[in-house]
Amino acid sequence: MLEKIHSPSDLSRLNQNELNVLAEEIRRRLIETVAERGGHLASNLGIVELTLALHRVFNCPEDQIVFDVGHQSYVHKMLTGRLDRFSTLREYGGLSGFPRRDESEYDCFETGHASTAISAALGLARARDFQHREHHVIAVVGDGALTGGMCYEALNDAGNSHTRLIVVLNDNEMSIAPNVGALSDYLTSLRSSAGWHSAKSRVRHLSDVPVIGKPLYRGIHGTKKLLKSILLRDKDIGFFETLGFEYFGPIDGHDMKMLESTLENAKMCKNPCVIHVLTRKGNGYDQAEERPEKFHGTPPFIAETGDRLELPKSPSSGHVMADTLADLADRDDRIVAITAAMPLGTGLDHFAERHPDRMLDVGIAEEHAATMAAGLAAGGMRPYLAVYSSFFQRCYDQMLNDVCMQHLPVVFLLDRSGIGGEDGKTHHGLFDLCELLPVPGMTVLSPCDSLELQEMMRWTLEQDGPCAIRYAKSGTEIRECHEGGAHFIAGKWREIRKGRDAVLLAAGAMVRRAMETAERLEMLGVEAAVTLCPTLKPLDAEYLAGIPAHVPVFTLEEHMAAGGFGAFVSEEMIRLGLTPPADCIGVPDTYLQHGAHELLMRDAGLTAEQMADRIMKKISGGNH
Amino acid sequence: MLEKIHSPSDLSRLNQNELNVLAEEIRRRLIETVAERGGHLASNLGIVELTLALHRVFNCPEDQIVFDVGHQSYVHKMLTGRLDRFSTLREYGGLSGFPRRDESEYDCFETGHASTAISAALGLARARDFQHREHHVIAVVGDGALTGGMCYEALNDAGNSHTRLIVVLNDNEMSIAPNVGALSDYLTSLRSSAGWHSAKSRVRHLSDVPVIGKPLYRGIHGTKKLLKSILLRDKDIGFFETLGFEYFGPIDGHDMKMLESTLENAKMCKNPCVIHVLTRKGNGYDQAEERPEKFHGTPPFIAETGDRLELPKSPSSGHVMADTLADLADRDDRIVAITAAMPLGTGLDHFAERHPDRMLDVGIAEEHAATMAAGLAAGGMRPYLAVYSSFFQRCYDQMLNDVCMQHLPVVFLLDRSGIGGEDGKTHHGLFDLCELLPVPGMTVLSPCDSLELQEMMRWTLEQDGPCAIRYAKSGTEIRECHEGGAHFIAGKWREIRKGRDAVLLAAGAMVRRAMETAERLEMLGVEAAVTLCPTLKPLDAEYLAGIPAHVPVFTLEEHMAAGGFGAFVSEEMIRLGLTPPADCIGVPDTYLQHGAHELLMRDAGLTAEQMADRIMKKISGGNH
Repeated sequence: MLEKIHSPSDLSRLNQNELNVLAEEIRRRLIETVAERGGHLASNLGIVELTLALHRVFNCPEDQIVFDVGHQSYVHKMLTGRLDRFSTLREYGGLSGFPRRDESEYDCFETGHASTAISAALGLARARDFQHREHHVIAVVGDGALTGGMCYEALNDAGNSHTRLIVVLNDNEMSIAPNVGALSDYLTSLRSSAGWHSAKSRVRHLSDVPVIGKPLYRGIHGTKKLLKSILLRDKDIGFFETLGFEYFGPIDGHDMKMLESTLENAKMCKNPCVIHVLTRKGNGYDQAEERPEKFHGTPPFIAETGDRLELPKSPSSGHVMADTLADLADRDDRIVAITAAMPLGTGLDHFAERHPDRMLDVGIAEEHAATMAAGLAAGGMRPYLAVYSSFFQRCYDQMLNDVCMQHLPVVFLLDRSGIGGEDGKTHHGLFDLCELLPVPGMTVLSPCDSLELQEMMRWTLEQDGPCAIRYAKSGTEIRECHEGGAHFIAGKWREIRKGRDAVLLAAGAMVRRAMETAERLEMLGVEAAVTLCPTLKPLDAEYLAGIPAHVPVFTLEEHMAAGGFGAFVSEEMIRLGLTPPADCIGVPDTYLQHGAHELLMRDAGLTAEQMADRIMKKISGGNH
Repeated sequence: MLEKIHSPSDLSRLNQNELNVLAEEIRRRLIETVAERGGHLASNLGIVELTLALHRVFNCPEDQIVFDVGHQSYVHKMLTGRLDRFSTLREYGGLSGFPRRDESEYDCFETGHASTAISAALGLARARDFQHREHHVIAVVGDGALTGGMCYEALNDAGNSHTRLIVVLNDNEMSIAPNVGALSDYLTSLRSSAGWHSAKSRVRHLSDVPVIGKPLYRGIHGTKKLLKSILLRDKDIGFFETLGFEYFGPIDGHDMKMLESTLENAKMCKNPCVIHVLTRKGNGYDQAEERPEKFHGTPPFIAETGDRLELPKSPSSGHVMADTLADLADRDDRIVAITAAMPLGTGLDHFAERHPDRMLDVGIAEEHAATMAAGLAAGGMRPYLAVYSSFFQRCYDQMLNDVCMQHLPVVFLLDRSGIGGEDGKTHHGLFDLCELLPVPGMTVLSPCDSLELQEMMRWTLEQDGPCAIRYAKSGTEIRECHEGGAHFIAGKWREIRKGRDAVLLAAGAMVRRAMETAERLEMLGVEAAVTLCPTLKPLDAEYLAGIPAHVPVFTLEEHMAAGGFGAFVSEEMIRLGLTPPADCIGVPDTYLQHGAHELLMRDAGLTAEQMADRIMKKISGGNH
């Protein structure tokens, strides 16, 4: 059946039985492909019927669907002419795991970070109105994404705009048990057809369903529970109506007929409306239904059992960070850990196990997280905010104004720094240094391995101002860094390999590659020193001043070359009257796409071989 | 009376008559001081009684008050031991116009940008709880600030936190007429004392009060009206209760007794609560009550008449931008202007007068503004988003992911770039280039005067990708830039002054100073060329390559030296194998404070005299 669907228009002639078969085939394909390639499984299994219904009711690409945090768009991709390439999902050169405008005219807007879809859809809807066009614009938003403040800014603006806009709230919170379906059907038939506004006792019953989840999810689950109680308010006028939206729901997101009739209803709305759809994350795959967190984003696994194909060889940086923080917290009552809805991704689950009371999960709300951390610090606590580098972009203003201008001891733990992998361009951590290095009073650190990360964690606790630690997802030990009992000294750089012909400055994950580059250079007859620069700001001016003027300096980094470590070193050396670097090697001025990390490193010119070649050219080119 | 108040504790022994006299004296002092120094008047006139009540009911500094967008803290400053210095308000070395922790122990958290106070207060409240302390934490938030998404992130988190926290909503929207007072008293006595939740018809009456305002404020006023209708919902459970807060109000914010009794009530709350206070902006000063926008932030004026002491000599950059944009929009239906609650500040009021339908005011919501602009562009429109440089920090992630990664033709118009003045550290525009220059596909422009700004505006309309134009508040014409009919060519730099001993690279407001610097250098025997660099990205590599290797290059900029234009030029010249700049002159690694622009330029080492000295030292120091 699935092979016969070349575009959404092919869906219209299917009957209910055929649709059921199709949904089953889609699920099988999802499981097979994600088992092989890794990716986001649970959310896509939950959205099969909803995606089918959307494409049967609406006429894409004329009608425009924006999927919030686009990793829930796999089914959409299968149905919009990309089935033949679906097995290349997230592969280098293959299909992206997120909507891509250059992939299909059915992808009208690209989404990688959460909570943007309503804003984008409102823009598209307004563009339609300005041009006197008539099509529909639909934003599909998860309940988790609604904790992001941007959603409210957008709802607030849209509710006052008199613009036609359909927001589908894909509510996949696990506490909604399957038996909810019948009731929600009933409610929907009451609410979305006439204008009949009551059924209090039944709705109240819904919002009393207890939240399932380990204590460590208390924060985010609590937030979701709260949200649910808002959505299912037993009041005539609910939350969305208050914001100027019409509200339909909640409806069972796995009942195609109900979905289609509700979406048809929504088409008639003259004003913005919300359709509240209840879906089950992982629906149709027992392993994912039981452990949806595990199958949210997953590496390759065995489809039959759900077991991962291989376990990580070394602990993640996040777990090293969290274990160290928990150790420190054993002795220091001031320590608080903060996450923006990512206790697992950041590794803070390890902290939460040992200090559940001092773990704060604020939802997908990085702006609030940073300023709330500043408040905690102003109140005498020692907050550690763990966040992926690319999501840290969300709280730039708050980091600068609320934390750093007040010189408060907040520690930003930037995970997934550097080039990411299969998630692609929105998820690389390549813009953190240009955000951090110009900030007065900020200390910026980057550990080359777990031992250095632990040492840095301990050091930050003694500081009276803001710090940021930038690290990759994992880092195997670099032996040379610890030889002779050497350890991290803030502000001090040191050579971990000697060489008189050139100096390679590197930090973090780039240290290993710098060592490999030096080995290659040695084969080419150049003796390059490798200098460990764990403190990126302040720079070690004394070390820089000690480099003989005739020895060319090279900076190596997994960050945009512009605004990165190299540019920072250059500007400082120029200011100090020193000979600036011979070359600053970093990511060139382009967006890296998705694929295996090593392939993307090659695209960026950051393999040891490429860097050695580049350095050789500079040295022999006679610039020094 | 006022002179006798040395700390808030002195307020407790005053009777109601004495308080009225005190309030009158405070208002007089506010008007006198702001008339002389400039500053934020209307909001402070509106908050006199509320501030008095807060300091009578609460015991600061043990109890902690966080004022959102701290410019409403003048009265607080007068009452907390800073009256003797109040006449130095916003003056270089004098009192800041915002809360400052280094100014007083009564300023527990610094606030400059909107919508942060609830997050900060929640952090302070949680810190209190962790330390088993008992004091109160109060956030004072304006109704305008509530359009910012951060507020919802914070309310959402707080409502689920079981933390004691008092949010005072200072609602100064002008549509609330004085006669509302009696009704709100009545409602308050009903609502805040017992638990009695009704009075529907009366509240509904309130929300029907029409909104007054010019059409150009439609957006923000509409938002405020919407908010009001939420707040005054004729439902048992309102917006804030839905988010887990107890709600008291609305109450008359100029009735001390009512304020005090409500605040006393709030002290008893075991959970987060909101007190909704209605105040009149400009209260007690006719000129400000009538034209609160004019007296929101004002330059010095004549207290008796309200007339400004001197009118600006040249049109603001914002008005030049808006007039040009309106001209372009006459001929191009795709153009839309967007502001985040600042139609006046950005100059877009001029655009709105001519194209009211294509002016979108989204509220204090920069994140949403940027992504909504991306949606408009994806839908075929040409959005121009005008925003102050320092507020642009709020939408870094959205600019990067939603606009630039999709290469959408959104134009960011960054007003107030460079060193600001009396508003101080949170309002300088010194971090925009480090945000923009590393972004692939972004074109970054900076006009030296109005003519160049106009030329750039026209040019951006022809582009298919994102652009940013960075400009100062105003710029008088630079004659040399236009000699011989020369005009802006994207990507091209050109010398507007010849000289063989050095090259000074400059853009924007720095061009005039570069000319002055060259004149000084000439007196010292150095012939320096001045090169106009209107396109900061992409750099003019051809021009750079043409500079003889023995001629020292200097970059001059009103931006942080780290991550700025100079660092960008350095990294590029190094990459190209050219001799990098001899020096990169920009703002050093420190926070500039508040005061007259010229004094802050001196602090930054950016006067023509200082720069000429620095260049002379470099040249004679023999680095080249």
